[in-house]
Amino acid sequence: MLILHNYWSSVCSQKARLCLAEKGLKYENRHVNLFEFEHWTPEFLKINPKAVVPALDHDGRIVIESNVILEYLEDAFPQTRLRPEDPYARSQMRLWVFNSEEMAHENVNTASYNPRHATRHKAKGHTKEDLRKLAARCPNPILRNRLLHRFEHGVSEEQENEAYAALDYLLDQMDGVLAEGPWIAGREYSLADIAMAPYVNRIEVLKRPEMVSAARRPRLANWWMRMQARPAYQEAFSVANPDKSDPLSR
Amino acid sequence: MLILHNYWSSVCSQKARLCLAEKGLKYENRHVNLFEFEHWTPEFLKINPKAVVPALDHDGRIVIESNVILEYLEDAFPQTRLRPEDPYARSQMRLWVFNSEEMAHENVNTASYNPRHATRHKAKGHTKEDLRKLAARCPNPILRNRLLHRFEHGVSEEQENEAYAALDYLLDQMDGVLAEGPWIAGREYSLADIAMAPYVNRIEVLKRPEMVSAARRPRLANWWMRMQARPAYQEAFSVANPDKSDPLSR
Repeated sequence: MLILHNYWSSVCSQKARLCLAEKGLKYENRHVNLFEFEHWTPEFLKINPKAVVPALDHDGRIVIESNVILEYLEDAFPQTRLRPEDPYARSQMRLWVFNSEEMAHENVNTASYNPRHATRHKAKGHTKEDLRKLAARCPNPILRNRLLHRFEHGVSEEQENEAYAALDYLLDQMDGVLAEGPWIAGREYSLADIAMAPYVNRIEVLKRPEMVSAARRPRLANWWMRMQARPAYQEAFSVANPDKSDPLSR
Repeated sequence: MLILHNYWSSVCSQKARLCLAEKGLKYENRHVNLFEFEHWTPEFLKINPKAVVPALDHDGRIVIESNVILEYLEDAFPQTRLRPEDPYARSQMRLWVFNSEEMAHENVNTASYNPRHATRHKAKGHTKEDLRKLAARCPNPILRNRLLHRFEHGVSEEQENEAYAALDYLLDQMDGVLAEGPWIAGREYSLADIAMAPYVNRIEVLKRPEMVSAARRPRLANWWMRMQARPAYQEAFSVANPDKSDPLSR
């Protein structure tokens, strides 16, 4: 039995859901409300001591970190193959799974703070002082320090611009590898496409569609159209927000 | 033919060299002097557009990012097996390869700045103004922003303490998984051990040996003794510093 502990709109959760959908795997979707800090509870820490989503429970054994979950699903359920056989093509797939974490994640997170995260905290009625107290309770010191800094100083326009510049650099490289395409790792659709899709989706949601437009990056725009047309994409990205007090629906 | 473009004491380069040594693979060691900014030259950008080391050249095809190189070497040269067969054990191996990047790397980098990086820039005679100008030339905007910030503000004692606290959190988790041991991913020595070794070495070099001592973390200390006793470790970590103007020898 598969259980995915995840949050409806977290990019890493979307990665895991997209992989599960591509493989046609049934799973129980357990929603962890990050804006009620459910991922910091003693119960959740038993599932993931790092206090983040997603976490995959497969017959009682837990796999954490979305990139690790992608490769685990490939090893445990190889029937639908999402990893090229050739070692070099596979390394290029892994480079992009890696890039999705190293380059996309941090910058998308920074760019998401003002329009999404801060908006939600505000909708929950949290003051700056509340948030400081909440952050001090975060059981993962790496996240705790980041949050304390964020709640104290926010994200400046300069930091947002730097994040978008970093994403531009990444998307240029992605447009470049798609010249060899049609998929990121070459001839085959793979975990690389799955890993990058949630970040491209988020860039659109953040109202920067020009970054992934045909006028600016034709190969990337074409890839993005093909990604969204996949039934698995539709399935993974159609999870509704179960928190009715949340102002965001995408 | 294998060529490793790397820097003698970079933790990610040490990862790649350790894996090559464990597999008994011969390679040409091409030193890229990071403190002469050789990784930012147009020639090096043809090898790695991200402007970082290591980069592995295998018969003219380039693989970048140390974690990707580890898995590539495993796929291309499986004769010495460094990845468990069982999907779950393999996922735990990958979690620690991931942790080495996500949790260890950034914090070891922060902790290394004052005693190592800044010391070297000073030995090269660079002023703060020189460094600012150099950083502005960095071709990777993500690194450029980090360096501009570092060269402007340095690393404070508070930031260093936060980095060591994060490393303590990581090492506690590592000590925990070693209870199942004897290796990080369980019964078999794997890429997880290779990925973490350079960070534990660096913590010792940074004069924090108590963090990996038997008194504080007995299982980790035992693992660390076994790691250092491996011939491959000796080989990978005995690369001498070819830059005679560099004040550091470890």
